[in-house]
Amino acid sequence: MFRSVSKFSVPRGSAKVFFFRPFNMRGLTVDALNPAILNVQYAVRGELAIKAEEYRVQLKTNTAHGLPFNKIISSNIGNPQQTGLDQPPITFNRQVAALMEWPALAELARDAFPEDVIARAKELQSEIGTIGAYSHSQGVPFIRKNVARFIEERDGYPSNPNHVFLTAGASAGVTLLLTMLISNPKSGILIPIPQYPLYTATLAAHSGLGIPYHLDEEADWATSAPEIEAAIAKAVAEGIEPKALVVINPGNPTGAVLDEATMEQLVHLCAQHNLVLLADEVYQSNLHARATHPFTSFKKVVRALGSAVPLVSFHSISKGVTGECGRRGGYFECANIDEDIIALVYKMVSVGLCPPLAGQVGVDCMVRSPRPGDASYALWKTETDATHAALEQRTKTMAARLNALPGVSCVDSPGALYLFPRIRLPTAAIEAARKAGKEPDTFYALELLDDTGICVVSGSGFGQKEGQYHYRLTCLCPGVEEYVGALERFHRKFMERYGA
Amino acid sequence: MFRSVSKFSVPRGSAKVFFFRPFNMRGLTVDALNPAILNVQYAVRGELAIKAEEYRVQLKTNTAHGLPFNKIISSNIGNPQQTGLDQPPITFNRQVAALMEWPALAELARDAFPEDVIARAKELQSEIGTIGAYSHSQGVPFIRKNVARFIEERDGYPSNPNHVFLTAGASAGVTLLLTMLISNPKSGILIPIPQYPLYTATLAAHSGLGIPYHLDEEADWATSAPEIEAAIAKAVAEGIEPKALVVINPGNPTGAVLDEATMEQLVHLCAQHNLVLLADEVYQSNLHARATHPFTSFKKVVRALGSAVPLVSFHSISKGVTGECGRRGGYFECANIDEDIIALVYKMVSVGLCPPLAGQVGVDCMVRSPRPGDASYALWKTETDATHAALEQRTKTMAARLNALPGVSCVDSPGALYLFPRIRLPTAAIEAARKAGKEPDTFYALELLDDTGICVVSGSGFGQKEGQYHYRLTCLCPGVEEYVGALERFHRKFMERYGA
Repeated sequence: MFRSVSKFSVPRGSAKVFFFRPFNMRGLTVDALNPAILNVQYAVRGELAIKAEEYRVQLKTNTAHGLPFNKIISSNIGNPQQTGLDQPPITFNRQVAALMEWPALAELARDAFPEDVIARAKELQSEIGTIGAYSHSQGVPFIRKNVARFIEERDGYPSNPNHVFLTAGASAGVTLLLTMLISNPKSGILIPIPQYPLYTATLAAHSGLGIPYHLDEEADWATSAPEIEAAIAKAVAEGIEPKALVVINPGNPTGAVLDEATMEQLVHLCAQHNLVLLADEVYQSNLHARATHPFTSFKKVVRALGSAVPLVSFHSISKGVTGECGRRGGYFECANIDEDIIALVYKMVSVGLCPPLAGQVGVDCMVRSPRPGDASYALWKTETDATHAALEQRTKTMAARLNALPGVSCVDSPGALYLFPRIRLPTAAIEAARKAGKEPDTFYALELLDDTGICVVSGSGFGQKEGQYHYRLTCLCPGVEEYVGALERFHRKFMERYGA
Repeated sequence: MFRSVSKFSVPRGSAKVFFFRPFNMRGLTVDALNPAILNVQYAVRGELAIKAEEYRVQLKTNTAHGLPFNKIISSNIGNPQQTGLDQPPITFNRQVAALMEWPALAELARDAFPEDVIARAKELQSEIGTIGAYSHSQGVPFIRKNVARFIEERDGYPSNPNHVFLTAGASAGVTLLLTMLISNPKSGILIPIPQYPLYTATLAAHSGLGIPYHLDEEADWATSAPEIEAAIAKAVAEGIEPKALVVINPGNPTGAVLDEATMEQLVHLCAQHNLVLLADEVYQSNLHARATHPFTSFKKVVRALGSAVPLVSFHSISKGVTGECGRRGGYFECANIDEDIIALVYKMVSVGLCPPLAGQVGVDCMVRSPRPGDASYALWKTETDATHAALEQRTKTMAARLNALPGVSCVDSPGALYLFPRIRLPTAAIEAARKAGKEPDTFYALELLDDTGICVVSGSGFGQKEGQYHYRLTCLCPGVEEYVGALERFHRKFMERYGA
């Protein structure tokens, strides 16, 4: 049985002189890997972003770079605090975080911190201990209670802290839930088109099927229950089993905000088809037209209807006025989900030990922001008002200027961080793209990057109707003139070059 | 086509009075979920840990709790900074982290920080920007360069920063690699028995097969190449395709440290069988017998042999003297892995956006700890020496006292954070366990918890030979008398009760 050891010809203690050259060593090749991962696509950090990164390195390391721009404008990703963008962190959140890192500062630098910050940090320390320890896998119980209270105040319906899971950003929660719901290769998940590509990427990685339903650009990217019904009917006819409906509200990349009547229709549709409702609500506080387009949570609608539809809703500290992408914090709340399934979710998150504590503390700061009367309130109000105002202002200005360009139409988003303009490309440009082996809108976006240093994501990364072309850009970049001005000049030049 | 909308009977604007009671709503049931997740088991946070958590709540909320102990001693998980345990954070690391959270402190509280801390934080800020932004998905390039330099200094061989991936703890990296390597339902991964249950849990979740190979308790938990050869032969005979060899060094739960001769054999074995070598080296700085049991990395052995074996080695800030579990920081280095596969790994991590920045900064502090001459060096040295000494001392004392107990034998671990004593249980205890529907060592561990508040993990959670019983406990608890004393009293009582 142990004979095979002789095969090794082991050079004991001779590591430095012996070089082993196995004859049959094939190494690791792509065809030996899980084939599902080859199908994964994530355009937000795909070809365009990788090329932009290369340019960034080139600009940094080579003064004679020969590029027609001096910086990269990262408009490809909703990363509010990225260098060169315009959303500073909230001081209160960072002061609490600093004290959590080094509690001795509360004595050593007492004067540097407002008293409510010191009190908040002490309270969190007494509940958490140190942030260097693993927490409860579901998240610190005290922070989950605060999340539940935040949800109750938002919706007017009870929330159970035991049904709240803190996560490393919303993405981690979405991935977990999709993985749990894909029970066989015929499992289908309804996803909006255009969509945030986390959904298609995760489905591809876990061999689930996306069931696309189109949003209506003519109606400001409205979600239509009949359109979803049709998508379900088509999928079922193809032998696919619809398991869940993904709704992104406010929309990504569209920025659309759902009205309550539509939301009620979607809840009924889930009941009718026995679907789990996955509500991606990470942009719930990025609202630019609160009077006409307020945010309503699906939790509230489900409860108001007295519905039994299973709902998982996702939130994050990466967006909103918090914008703390790098902390990796977020949560999801389960409603109408049985305890035995909650226990399974707990088991799955326990394998990953716990979400990052810095992210959990960030969630606590988001759901318990300073209130009137608190020492930090005035500064917090000034900072968050400025962030809301800047985003609202830039979104409107950019939409107006894009709409004024030839061949461009752009829905003026009432929510989220993005615009998703449609571009009508000249036939010659489409032909040039096909010749280069690129999707026409990717071709456009690559030329934009090469010419201006502005990195956007082409519509094909999000999905769009056949023969239509779009791109997504964020409304986070300061210097509308420098940014949109460059975009306009490029667009006119591009259209001229291809004879529009 | 849109006819189906009439099915909804939508109560527009009447949410508050309308209660919808669908007849065919089945809700979400366990049998509708991915069946693979039902097979996932993770004992470290399983039945025992959940019961301990319930006791903890009971102790906190109910002064007349009626329990025979006043606190829970969490010996189930390697969580050095947990409340009540004995490994404080390194001051340097936390000072840097605090400045990263709120850079203004460098001016506001200049006297509170040593000058090397301020310089380090400024350097990191100039490379990262703010830690509130997403970084490069693979991790901040500057920090990856520092990791590569750390590896080079450790091993004496080059390391490529582009082949280093920063992660949210080692677990995230292990999960990703296993997911990529499980290419079909017959894919097998060689895992040691006993093993850290992340491996079996991840394999279960992704429908991969574990190919167990036993470590030799009689030889201080040695790893044997012939034993692995035999496991491969058996698996291949059963139609399983071995894809990778997992080695945990220093061992978890065993604490064994591999010698170079054995490591060379394992590398040759991987070459022979075309296996990827997955080296879990998270305990590389937890060494209690450096003179006789030094740590050698697999990277060094692979390079010294001139081997082409594909290697992925994992490290973490959660263990060692850093002990920063809550930050979720770590990295893996790929060696002998082709660029097209590196690109696939990058694509997969990009879907998750980026590892937590607090964890990335923690990695930087681990790989660039203060050096002689730095203002922080003396304190850093005092703190880390104390942590090493306490762990070494406790491990030895606990092993000696456990070995003195009737029916207990315990390898005196030269590495990691644990002991894994074998317990020879009386027949009556085994019968009582079976009657209670429990594994005998789980039964023992549950009684230990009920009696003393000490939470350990039973050997069945890690795997062991048929008919043998063990448990894993950490060597992190202070108060050896309070802790081990209680354990001894329980053990003697248990053995008497069951007539040993």
